[in-house]
Amino acid sequence: MTAEPSPARPTRLGQNQYGKAEVRVVRVVRDGDTHHLKDLSVSVALSGAMEDVHLSGSNAAVLTTDTTKNTVYAFAQKHGIESAEGFAILLARHFVTSQASIHRARIRVEQYAWDRIGPQETGHSFVRDARETRTTEVTFDGAHWQVVSGLKDMVVLNTTDSEFRGYLKDGYTTLPETRDRVLATEVTARWRFSWSGDDQPEPAWEETYPQVRGHLLAAFAETYSLSLQQTLYSMGARVIERTPGVDEVRLSLPNKHHFLVDLEPFGLKNDNEVYYAADRPYGLIEGTVLREGAEAAIPVTD
Amino acid sequence: MTAEPSPARPTRLGQNQYGKAEVRVVRVVRDGDTHHLKDLSVSVALSGAMEDVHLSGSNAAVLTTDTTKNTVYAFAQKHGIESAEGFAILLARHFVTSQASIHRARIRVEQYAWDRIGPQETGHSFVRDARETRTTEVTFDGAHWQVVSGLKDMVVLNTTDSEFRGYLKDGYTTLPETRDRVLATEVTARWRFSWSGDDQPEPAWEETYPQVRGHLLAAFAETYSLSLQQTLYSMGARVIERTPGVDEVRLSLPNKHHFLVDLEPFGLKNDNEVYYAADRPYGLIEGTVLREGAEAAIPVTD
Amino acid sequence: MTAEPSPARPTRLGQNQYGKAEVRVVRVVRDGDTHHLKDLSVSVALSGAMEDVHLSGSNAAVLTTDTTKNTVYAFAQKHGIESAEGFAILLARHFVTSQASIHRARIRVEQYAWDRIGPQETGHSFVRDARETRTTEVTFDGAHWQVVSGLKDMVVLNTTDSEFRGYLKDGYTTLPETRDRVLATEVTARWRFSWSGDDQPEPAWEETYPQVRGHLLAAFAETYSLSLQQTLYSMGARVIERTPGVDEVRLSLPNKHHFLVDLEPFGLKNDNEVYYAADRPYGLIEGTVLREGAEAAIPVTD
Amino acid sequence: MTAEPSPARPTRLGQNQYGKAEVRVVRVVRDGDTHHLKDLSVSVALSGAMEDVHLSGSNAAVLTTDTTKNTVYAFAQKHGIESAEGFAILLARHFVTSQASIHRARIRVEQYAWDRIGPQETGHSFVRDARETRTTEVTFDGAHWQVVSGLKDMVVLNTTDSEFRGYLKDGYTTLPETRDRVLATEVTARWRFSWSGDDQPEPAWEETYPQVRGHLLAAFAETYSLSLQQTLYSMGARVIERTPGVDEVRLSLPNKHHFLVDLEPFGLKNDNEVYYAADRPYGLIEGTVLREGAEAAIPVTD
Repeated sequence: MTAEPSPARPTRLGQNQYGKAEVRVVRVVRDGDTHHLKDLSVSVALSGAMEDVHLSGSNAAVLTTDTTKNTVYAFAQKHGIESAEGFAILLARHFVTSQASIHRARIRVEQYAWDRIGPQETGHSFVRDARETRTTEVTFDGAHWQVVSGLKDMVVLNTTDSEFRGYLKDGYTTLPETRDRVLATEVTARWRFSWSGDDQPEPAWEETYPQVRGHLLAAFAETYSLSLQQTLYSMGARVIERTPGVDEVRLSLPNKHHFLVDLEPFGLKNDNEVYYAADRPYGLIEGTVLREGAEAAIPVTD
Repeated sequence: MTAEPSPARPTRLGQNQYGKAEVRVVRVVRDGDTHHLKDLSVSVALSGAMEDVHLSGSNAAVLTTDTTKNTVYAFAQKHGIESAEGFAILLARHFVTSQASIHRARIRVEQYAWDRIGPQETGHSFVRDARETRTTEVTFDGAHWQVVSGLKDMVVLNTTDSEFRGYLKDGYTTLPETRDRVLATEVTARWRFSWSGDDQPEPAWEETYPQVRGHLLAAFAETYSLSLQQTLYSMGARVIERTPGVDEVRLSLPNKHHFLVDLEPFGLKNDNEVYYAADRPYGLIEGTVLREGAEAAIPVTD
Repeated sequence: MTAEPSPARPTRLGQNQYGKAEVRVVRVVRDGDTHHLKDLSVSVALSGAMEDVHLSGSNAAVLTTDTTKNTVYAFAQKHGIESAEGFAILLARHFVTSQASIHRARIRVEQYAWDRIGPQETGHSFVRDARETRTTEVTFDGAHWQVVSGLKDMVVLNTTDSEFRGYLKDGYTTLPETRDRVLATEVTARWRFSWSGDDQPEPAWEETYPQVRGHLLAAFAETYSLSLQQTLYSMGARVIERTPGVDEVRLSLPNKHHFLVDLEPFGLKNDNEVYYAADRPYGLIEGTVLREGAEAAIPVTD
Repeated sequence: MTAEPSPARPTRLGQNQYGKAEVRVVRVVRDGDTHHLKDLSVSVALSGAMEDVHLSGSNAAVLTTDTTKNTVYAFAQKHGIESAEGFAILLARHFVTSQASIHRARIRVEQYAWDRIGPQETGHSFVRDARETRTTEVTFDGAHWQVVSGLKDMVVLNTTDSEFRGYLKDGYTTLPETRDRVLATEVTARWRFSWSGDDQPEPAWEETYPQVRGHLLAAFAETYSLSLQQTLYSMGARVIERTPGVDEVRLSLPNKHHFLVDLEPFGLKNDNEVYYAADRPYGLIEGTVLREGAEAAIPVTD
């Protein structure tokens, strides 16, 4: 592997995209003394006829990332932010339809929740409710739409109704089987909508989010778990079975291990009462649940 | 790697302490089908007759950090965890009274909140409520106790009722005055109890926490703010005025700037509707509110 | 979107994988008084005949994540760790060939660099060199191998030789053009090797890493930049042109904006001397450079 | 949200301070084709006659945090940045001497290191050297100066020459003694200069930093360690013995535990070769080494 210069250019451009990431926009609506708040981080990624800028440095086809940032702020004023999904759809449509060189837009949004302080009538004071972050990713290539919404950082725990046994053993297996363990995980979920574009009415984005969140929590709580994979499948299946507009659920569930502490050296019994919450390493269980017969997803490229 | 020997030893040991930090303990109580959960991170810091271990490496006076960790777990089983403060008091008393070489113990606790999933009767399923972290720091030197409880990571925001004007101007001042701005901060608060030890009944730790939290929120929401310092003082004063057992409140309030976005280049008015939430730099306002006539705090050393 | 229970199960399992993540292993080799150190974080992801565990909770086909962790440690002792890539290959082959239910293994490694303290002969003292993290990802499905190595967190900056002008303008464009700006980015790079398996000799992994790193730095420093995309392409192309065994380079380059501070209000000129280093938002430029005629990559699924 | 008025105001203002935190300033010096770079994060904290702003909201005595930020940038242009300490001294003197209401200034600086890319003559390309962060804290109250410089995030490890035995045992002790362990820590060090003000020449700040850093590393590497406390004292003492202008060294050394992995279940011996690097909990050893007869430090208040 010597480092001699090569005479010719044997390379070509592959998949690429660009845009402004993590545009933090807070939108206030003043309804008399009652104020409303939306708090988002918006990331724009555009792709299209971008050979020139890579190969020669010509920016003639490039809408700058600074312009995409300005567009986010201007659209927040002009159109308001009814939902993360709706706002991302407006932006994606704008970028793809307003510039010939831009063929595809992907808008990712994180949304942070706020609760009101005190009784509802006070109206302008809020406390951040950081329990989880709501996400969405909207992709539009001029013809097809794909909306994948989700949440992350939702930590859940069952103190019982979880077993783990009957697994494969090989020469490196030391784990004892258990009929009663703590099961805890930090849920990252993404659900893909069947909605594919402008000829269909948009789903009720704001209503769907708490419903899906509720199904994920209920399935976690109600499943008597024989493995985290089984819990994962139950969570995804429950969402699809009860949410007609959702065709796919992807879940990433790190197993946040809670190990029983050995208290025998101190003459104490530990009857599933005292646990050590470990950081690393952790089991990582990832899986996808699909609606039978649904169309395949557009491949998500980074 | 030789080193020039120095003829004399012109140094001496100053303030020092040691212990195990961030012991993560989860304590479950099983009341039939209804389970209860406490989730803590406990940090132990001990000091005392520790010259030898620093100067000669003799560990004869050292209770190992591993032992302090084991003690946390054993005490969680033996005594349960009724409150972070009560648990820290048990630990501090144990370390100072059980070893002659240990003269002072400082126990710091972070506590993470969990909500139940679903109806109360379900009983063993929880979701992490990460809105803020509850803290406490208990210091005991064999004679005097000091308990400083608190919270951190509580983010609050007012969309109006905040001005900022009438300030000093010098040759480096460019900030325009404003009569209506967003005021947002991430509250770190610590309140020192007047409780000083075993001859007094312990305060109702579990009841005090939500009361103080409520006062902080109410004072933030109700204060028409002319400066963040004024808001800070209102928050601290309200806690002291309404919580008889608290003598001091220390607050650290980063000013999480929300800047109005200039939309004029796009022909749009921004009538206090669209803000950019900035990360850095940030104003940092720190202050202490004291009860008149209260005893001074034991200096907190790191 | 009502939440009525559905009578049938209209779902099926899609793409899935599991394993232990972030297994932190430090391997010491003692060559007399000269010690050698490898410091890795290893993440194992396995997939295969996993329908049962998701649908019924049967773990009969599951090699536990705990066992995969044990295997990492045992292999570190038995085989040593010559390179991150070589170690990952050993693990991937083991998992796929030793269990009928496991059809594919993906091993991701992060490697942390250490320098010796003092002269080379001292031999057992090290200081962490955190400049960047070395990465690799090895995928094996029983027939095909894919090795994608890389680095992350390498921050670079040019104080000049960077322009940005000639770009598209629309109604949301306010950015002025510039002929001299600071260009800074935090490089994440991944390079895919053409090596496809056991019938070929393995590339010289340990020699390739510093060569590729050097090409990335040299191309960043030597390119007179008209846009960050052009710099990105130069970096990727230089690696491919000078590294015969590499067919593809993927780069993710956040534009770490350094804005000139306006000092005119203070009667000062800012002749490209004083910059504000911004955190968010940031431009994010991502692109792939491919060797002409090379085989396509195996799609990377998360 | 009404609140019961309290009859009296039984509170008063205690210790307080305010200013702009984390002002990120990058200063370029262009010496022909050779450019030089300083990269700092500066935090300003001012205190003084601030009762009014807390009690009534009057800002008449308040120099705004925005102005302090502007001052940092203007001073970077006017005076350049020769050293973090020298720059902080200029700022502290300015704030205290230019406004009657400001009685004390504390300037904290973090400095990030950059290496040149390629041969020295290239001149304008840099790569961030993130091994450690250099720090300083300058306090000035109009009469007395105190400079405490330091570093953080310097991770060091010895693979041998570390024992741990002979410690206290109580009923909660299970740790076995060892004559050969890995000793690793992440050094946070702060050294206080004896320099106390303008009638003395300033120490050679830029020369002192690498000297102190070298002493810390050498003492860590050369000490045959019987406990981390002993290593801590050796590190601090070596700095004081060999750096005439330094009177005090404070060290915070988390014990980054590296546990031997038990490989016996797999029929393997682990002869101090394979370690698990643990995250939490960790021992935390903190101590101060003082020069005999030196003046006491000004108490550092947060």
